[in-house]
Amino acid sequence: MIGYGFMGAAHSVGWRQAPAVFALPDAVEMAVLVGRNASAVADAAAQWGWQETATDWREVIERDDIDIVDIVTPGDSHAEIAIAALRAGKHVIVEKPMANTVAEAEAMAAAATEARERGIRSMVGFTYRRVPAVTLLRDLLAAGKVGTVQQIRATYRQDWLVDPEMPLAWRLQKEHAGSGALGDIGAHIIDMTQFVTGSDVERVSGTVETIVKRRPVQGAGSGLSGTAGEGYGDVTVDDLAIFTGRLDSGALVSFEASRFATGRKNALTIEVSGDRGALRFDLEDLNVLHFYDRTVDPALQGFTRILVTEAEHPYVAAWWPAGHMLGYEHGFVHQAKDFIEAIAAGEDPHPSFEEGVRVQRVLDAVERSAAAESRWVGVH
Amino acid sequence: MIGYGFMGAAHSVGWRQAPAVFALPDAVEMAVLVGRNASAVADAAAQWGWQETATDWREVIERDDIDIVDIVTPGDSHAEIAIAALRAGKHVIVEKPMANTVAEAEAMAAAATEARERGIRSMVGFTYRRVPAVTLLRDLLAAGKVGTVQQIRATYRQDWLVDPEMPLAWRLQKEHAGSGALGDIGAHIIDMTQFVTGSDVERVSGTVETIVKRRPVQGAGSGLSGTAGEGYGDVTVDDLAIFTGRLDSGALVSFEASRFATGRKNALTIEVSGDRGALRFDLEDLNVLHFYDRTVDPALQGFTRILVTEAEHPYVAAWWPAGHMLGYEHGFVHQAKDFIEAIAAGEDPHPSFEEGVRVQRVLDAVERSAAAESRWVGVH
Amino acid sequence: MIGYGFMGAAHSVGWRQAPAVFALPDAVEMAVLVGRNASAVADAAAQWGWQETATDWREVIERDDIDIVDIVTPGDSHAEIAIAALRAGKHVIVEKPMANTVAEAEAMAAAATEARERGIRSMVGFTYRRVPAVTLLRDLLAAGKVGTVQQIRATYRQDWLVDPEMPLAWRLQKEHAGSGALGDIGAHIIDMTQFVTGSDVERVSGTVETIVKRRPVQGAGSGLSGTAGEGYGDVTVDDLAIFTGRLDSGALVSFEASRFATGRKNALTIEVSGDRGALRFDLEDLNVLHFYDRTVDPALQGFTRILVTEAEHPYVAAWWPAGHMLGYEHGFVHQAKDFIEAIAAGEDPHPSFEEGVRVQRVLDAVERSAAAESRWVGVH
Amino acid sequence: MIGYGFMGAAHSVGWRQAPAVFALPDAVEMAVLVGRNASAVADAAAQWGWQETATDWREVIERDDIDIVDIVTPGDSHAEIAIAALRAGKHVIVEKPMANTVAEAEAMAAAATEARERGIRSMVGFTYRRVPAVTLLRDLLAAGKVGTVQQIRATYRQDWLVDPEMPLAWRLQKEHAGSGALGDIGAHIIDMTQFVTGSDVERVSGTVETIVKRRPVQGAGSGLSGTAGEGYGDVTVDDLAIFTGRLDSGALVSFEASRFATGRKNALTIEVSGDRGALRFDLEDLNVLHFYDRTVDPALQGFTRILVTEAEHPYVAAWWPAGHMLGYEHGFVHQAKDFIEAIAAGEDPHPSFEEGVRVQRVLDAVERSAAAESRWVGVH
Repeated sequence: MIGYGFMGAAHSVGWRQAPAVFALPDAVEMAVLVGRNASAVADAAAQWGWQETATDWREVIERDDIDIVDIVTPGDSHAEIAIAALRAGKHVIVEKPMANTVAEAEAMAAAATEARERGIRSMVGFTYRRVPAVTLLRDLLAAGKVGTVQQIRATYRQDWLVDPEMPLAWRLQKEHAGSGALGDIGAHIIDMTQFVTGSDVERVSGTVETIVKRRPVQGAGSGLSGTAGEGYGDVTVDDLAIFTGRLDSGALVSFEASRFATGRKNALTIEVSGDRGALRFDLEDLNVLHFYDRTVDPALQGFTRILVTEAEHPYVAAWWPAGHMLGYEHGFVHQAKDFIEAIAAGEDPHPSFEEGVRVQRVLDAVERSAAAESRWVGVH
Repeated sequence: MIGYGFMGAAHSVGWRQAPAVFALPDAVEMAVLVGRNASAVADAAAQWGWQETATDWREVIERDDIDIVDIVTPGDSHAEIAIAALRAGKHVIVEKPMANTVAEAEAMAAAATEARERGIRSMVGFTYRRVPAVTLLRDLLAAGKVGTVQQIRATYRQDWLVDPEMPLAWRLQKEHAGSGALGDIGAHIIDMTQFVTGSDVERVSGTVETIVKRRPVQGAGSGLSGTAGEGYGDVTVDDLAIFTGRLDSGALVSFEASRFATGRKNALTIEVSGDRGALRFDLEDLNVLHFYDRTVDPALQGFTRILVTEAEHPYVAAWWPAGHMLGYEHGFVHQAKDFIEAIAAGEDPHPSFEEGVRVQRVLDAVERSAAAESRWVGVH
Repeated sequence: MIGYGFMGAAHSVGWRQAPAVFALPDAVEMAVLVGRNASAVADAAAQWGWQETATDWREVIERDDIDIVDIVTPGDSHAEIAIAALRAGKHVIVEKPMANTVAEAEAMAAAATEARERGIRSMVGFTYRRVPAVTLLRDLLAAGKVGTVQQIRATYRQDWLVDPEMPLAWRLQKEHAGSGALGDIGAHIIDMTQFVTGSDVERVSGTVETIVKRRPVQGAGSGLSGTAGEGYGDVTVDDLAIFTGRLDSGALVSFEASRFATGRKNALTIEVSGDRGALRFDLEDLNVLHFYDRTVDPALQGFTRILVTEAEHPYVAAWWPAGHMLGYEHGFVHQAKDFIEAIAAGEDPHPSFEEGVRVQRVLDAVERSAAAESRWVGVH
Repeated sequence: MIGYGFMGAAHSVGWRQAPAVFALPDAVEMAVLVGRNASAVADAAAQWGWQETATDWREVIERDDIDIVDIVTPGDSHAEIAIAALRAGKHVIVEKPMANTVAEAEAMAAAATEARERGIRSMVGFTYRRVPAVTLLRDLLAAGKVGTVQQIRATYRQDWLVDPEMPLAWRLQKEHAGSGALGDIGAHIIDMTQFVTGSDVERVSGTVETIVKRRPVQGAGSGLSGTAGEGYGDVTVDDLAIFTGRLDSGALVSFEASRFATGRKNALTIEVSGDRGALRFDLEDLNVLHFYDRTVDPALQGFTRILVTEAEHPYVAAWWPAGHMLGYEHGFVHQAKDFIEAIAAGEDPHPSFEEGVRVQRVLDAVERSAAAESRWVGVH
């Protein structure tokens, strides 16, 4: 695994837990953790259970005893590492966002296509697809439980930027972060919409906004826990994106990605409305799926709160009895499981790099629409 | 109508609104409001729309132009007035609690039985039966939607006594109030349980408790808004009753009536569990009924939140379109409607005085059990 | 009162209940109900308690014994009646939408301005302002409880058009209805946003959509309960409007008005996010207001579910004890009360006709933006 | 670790994840998994990551390279193993229920007391104490946030026995299972009540019930997934226990443990009401704690829904960012962490064996009261 930030911890749980919970076709060895700072990497590897460490990813991806390369570095290095790893014949998982530009993402997808012919698998880390309630939502949609989809609402709302005196961390600077709320959390709701419906966003009209435009320069510390220094600097990424998308099925989708939704901590929500029913999900209540069935007795209709913890539900049978909750990191365990099973079966796991590219193109189109007075623009 | 307290206001809404909302078989005239304090009664009558006032209920119940006597006085006068009114050939509604003792209630029921032979109707004011969601709950139970009832939980929780410095109002003194939480709000959950199941409580085991045993003597003011005076006095009614009942169907019911449930304002809840499903209701969310159906696909089971505001639901078609909320006083409108329709149809409305007696007997049994170290005792 | 549809019933409750519940400065007489169909009006008047009926509104507004004219006719007649009534010196309430065009609304506002100098009061019927939880939301915002407003989300979602075989009622034809979801329910969320914030929407970017474009021609019956006849016709109003607004305070607002939100019956929701807290409300849970306070101990922060049924809350003290629910029609009672009090006090009640005009202008701007590829346009 | 059932899986997650997530004072090695069936144990050990296996626990507890013995066998073997392990100088965790009888539990507590003098630590596996929201509830109670506790309600409701045709598994036979709902899930709510309040249950009055008294004899298969064979047999454990407890602080607690609460999967709930506020928790929504604060402005009072996922909350800082959910097994990770830290610090972890004994005594008292017509009996 290359990278050892917050996502490194989450992916490590995936690799550690998957073989202990699921009956996998192959054994998993957590071989090498790679990072530029040798001592920090050593500490992380010791805690997370990696056997070795290295500082040069190029050497590691050439090693014969490595089968899978898991990339959790910042987005600007994804393309280079992923393409090299695929060429070296390694199966690759790359954390989202897949890349910082459409062009990089397309190059990665091209490399994945070519590698696929050699039996090499690749996958983008949209792990929310593997929350059991989300997988169930997709399955019910595919089974026609809501009929024809007529309208969708998808939001991802957090509130960690609400305080205007929070310092100007690197995540708020375009040259380092690439993008703000749109690319970071907007990407998730675009992918989830396309995943659950099987339809692509074709056109968008949107607005991106920087609510607090200047913040205190960061003093001591780094990342989100840094303290304010002297003077103020410009915030150069968006912290709110509101956009409407048209799916190729014709349905309209309203999207909102916000880091200013006071009191909402990690509220990824989606509601799919159709002529036979509706489904809705909220990541802050992740063991639950709500289903409205228009086909039953009208006097008994209502949203049914399904606790997605039964053995009948996706992924759940391997875990705990009914009513025992799963949490955030379970998606990473399911991701590891599905990737290993796909490799063993010689099948392509989802989401593919091509699906990752589609998300990048929608993000790009939203920025183009926002720059054109929110006019509708095509995704291409 | 005899009496003009808080219940007088609520009953007046019932008589005023019922003919304006429902197509009733007979016209309603709000003829005479009766109370001992002539000027206070005159004020209330003017505000609530009663045509006349009187101070002597005995005269009023003899008047030929009076058809219905609605009794909303304190419980200790119910028996005398109701029996006299029934003998005078008037249809009678009596607010709950029907009476302060079982003996009084039985005398009233005897009078009602005799009057019934002369075509005279009588009814006890358990209006929560006529909240649409409660009526629907009963209908679904009767239709077998939860199968065999295996267990019930019923609570009525308020919190207006939580503050230990709240003064010793007359409601907290046995000689005036007769009873505490048990008789006041416990009566409602006993009646509701018997109503929705069609089964009677046969035996009980229970505890009654006075949590704050001494309170400041009331100074200026009266009722619940009075202020503390000097010195402390004994609270002589219960403020918490916890009891278990055995229905004649065999199912166990856990009951709780509390005035010390901090944060719960008017939380009458009931949950009925059966081998085919479950139903639950909360008066603080009174337009909603929750239904769990064990007979559907296990992957889709969950509590369905039915918004009981559809034209298909009991009483609702006469009100507003779907999704428009009803409130507390609508139960009184439905009570007035049902009583007038029953009189016109020559049928007995529910709850009958006999049903009222059954509630009184359960209350009495709880007190006997509490006095006998919570041993199980029979209801008789 | 002129008109006797669904809104006639709701307004009648307002006039009937207001004097019985609140201590009003003047007596209320429900004098004349006006409508073109003499027998239908007579039936409605008898049920709702109006003393007289008439078929010619012009005669009624000239009568000396009439003080208030309440207009609940379809929108295309509002301007003519309201302007005539104001000129005749009558206080006027007009149901929303105030008018079908901006020009009509402006003419009405001009008449109201002129009448105001003669002490004549006027008001638009946005009754949701008078739901206690909404009034409380506005009060808390005005008191600075959420600090600087940074973002707002407002939706109004219903689902009565979800079935594509529902016939083509007059409400779905532009020549009769004027507008679809945008004007009917979108108007409410625009007014509520402007009301609670005290800020105006200055610019908008939006999309309006007709999801089901052809429906069965209506056969027997009329209105929403009609049955399908032979052949199909075009739906000429929108059934979904998604738009973003910029307030003069700078905050962005996302709006959605939908008649296709399966399972949502009357879901007017608003969430106001600020740097000190957040407030949110849902009309399907109308006795509740949620408040998030960022200024308390971080370990104790969360949305507080305030049951707006305490004597401390707006309008509530005149009704029932804590925890006893209010419903839809209580807003009409509060509207009647506030209008009568304003007349007696010689003050202008809100919302004024000018405020009604502002809503009409926003609706117009949304349609202009939608016609211009969703580009941002000014409200004027 | 001795035992390898469902609890074996959960405890293994604890030992595996604790050192990877928390900075522990000592390294953890998952040394030996012990069970009677050599091949089944080998399979489990391979999946869960144990280094060795053994079939004789007596040999293992004598090994010098073993520091901790974790006992997850059925309850009837707990006493023998735990006492032997403590005498052998091993730190011991024993899964709940601590033992099948009070006498066994007392013997274990005596062994723990003696071992404590030699620096040997022991702990009972009531892991729900270590759900962050439960720990926070206890901390807020201890800090006086609800003032004087006046009333408590605690329930644990599941529904896996609702179907009367479900076969007679060993868990429904007293000779194998020892107890039913009371001992299995009732134990949890007794412990949680004593833990969060710091008060002991002194007296109880209760009823235990077997709702379905005869079930099909089990045919093929075993455990809960077995199928019905021929004939019927007696259910000899309770499936519903309703009891009231008196704490030494004087407060009354209503308890319910049910396996027949249709639609409730794992609903451990507790609500603590005091004169300054209230706290409530539901295990089916385990990242949430509800807090009602009576000391704030009455117009703003309500239950605050605290998402217990902030760095300020117990255990959370080591996991994920705010709003990222934890699940069932996190309690086992926290248990492992706290046990290792206590050993390193030379301190006694909670819950001690003495606390386990207190739970056993309450269970015993409930059965004695049930056998005595639900009369109040002392806990001793």
